[in-house]
Amino acid sequence: MHLFYQPDIIQGSHFLNEEESRHCVKVMRHKIGDIIKVIDGKGGSFTAQITKADYRKCEFEIIEQSKSPEKRFNIHIGIAPTKNMDRLEWFVEKCVEIGIDEISFIQCQQSERKHLKLDRLERKAISAMKQSTNNQFPKLYDLMSFQQFIENNSNPDQKFIAYVDELIPEHLYNLAERNQRYLVLIGPEGDFSKEEISMAKTNDFVPVSLGKSRLRTETAGIVACHILNLIN
Amino acid sequence: MHLFYQPDIIQGSHFLNEEESRHCVKVMRHKIGDIIKVIDGKGGSFTAQITKADYRKCEFEIIEQSKSPEKRFNIHIGIAPTKNMDRLEWFVEKCVEIGIDEISFIQCQQSERKHLKLDRLERKAISAMKQSTNNQFPKLYDLMSFQQFIENNSNPDQKFIAYVDELIPEHLYNLAERNQRYLVLIGPEGDFSKEEISMAKTNDFVPVSLGKSRLRTETAGIVACHILNLIN
Repeated sequence: MHLFYQPDIIQGSHFLNEEESRHCVKVMRHKIGDIIKVIDGKGGSFTAQITKADYRKCEFEIIEQSKSPEKRFNIHIGIAPTKNMDRLEWFVEKCVEIGIDEISFIQCQQSERKHLKLDRLERKAISAMKQSTNNQFPKLYDLMSFQQFIENNSNPDQKFIAYVDELIPEHLYNLAERNQRYLVLIGPEGDFSKEEISMAKTNDFVPVSLGKSRLRTETAGIVACHILNLIN
Repeated sequence: MHLFYQPDIIQGSHFLNEEESRHCVKVMRHKIGDIIKVIDGKGGSFTAQITKADYRKCEFEIIEQSKSPEKRFNIHIGIAPTKNMDRLEWFVEKCVEIGIDEISFIQCQQSERKHLKLDRLERKAISAMKQSTNNQFPKLYDLMSFQQFIENNSNPDQKFIAYVDELIPEHLYNLAERNQRYLVLIGPEGDFSKEEISMAKTNDFVPVSLGKSRLRTETAGIVACHILNLIN
């Protein structure tokens, strides 16, 4: 059964947005009476019947619904966008496939990229969510400065910062506990500056290693996300 | 210090190949007397001094050498090439960053890709090896049929096959033991056929899960490689 995304279905929005309507009616050629599956990216899954096969606003009626059990952990990754946009899109796609709740993009001193196309990343996330059947659409936050980010994120249970450190800190795999709200910071190609590391430590971020290899930014992000899913 | 790759340095090849020579002499503008670092992709690491700065064959003399300790495990992934070549290149790049010993490309019944550019994948692997400082160049084997592959790989300690199975097999993370020679099979976009799964089981491959999500081929490969590194 074909899968479509409507984030506000529970609030009564029983139609697909323009992009999904076009896909449903023009590409998949669905007609009135056809049965489709709709997810809301928040764990809700709906079997629906098309009541108006309009390619700009395809309407449907819910026949059956189910809800995934509440997750007991929350993964938030704060990452410095890579210079090459493809690498960042890959990071988003892979994390959504594996499972992630929040992604923040952080402007660091040594970041080469100064702006983002958040809508492109959102489209990548939607398509990854649909194909992985994960039904969990992450919150994607627009680019903000390192300092602003650090000071606005005081609620996670465990806060980590991953960087290349000669002191070789403990592995994230050993430090992360189960069923927590995690926040992991991943630095830019040129790594975090000394000031940023010190600011993070002052704000209770714990330095962690992600293994012996020197990983690229996007690989470090994927690896951190996978470790946290694995221990849960 | 700039890093170059010469796989046969220990056999006395004290020069860089054409591509690496060009990079060293034309791009990095190294001259006679300059000190460079050369790795052999087998754990050997060499500090070397340039004795002939020729951009077709840059020669050097070894000043110092060291060898990484022998690894106690071996990761071999057999993967059906993805239709989109970029996805396969990403798989190779990420696995080399994380750490992998052997990669086989398998022609499955439901594979859409029938040929490979192995040299392109090798270049990706070399660049990932240099940037990750992993100094471990994997063996890349050319495309072979599923049956040929299954019948020629009897020496690993633990053999797994990952596919979407309604019986939900045990997670690779729980089944893999430490310090083993592993072989993991990852299927194509349309998954393995029933005949292939049955042939693999007959040849002692154990079905495994890689988590709740339905992962893309390349993601499944990366995730399997990461799990095996993590438990070791």
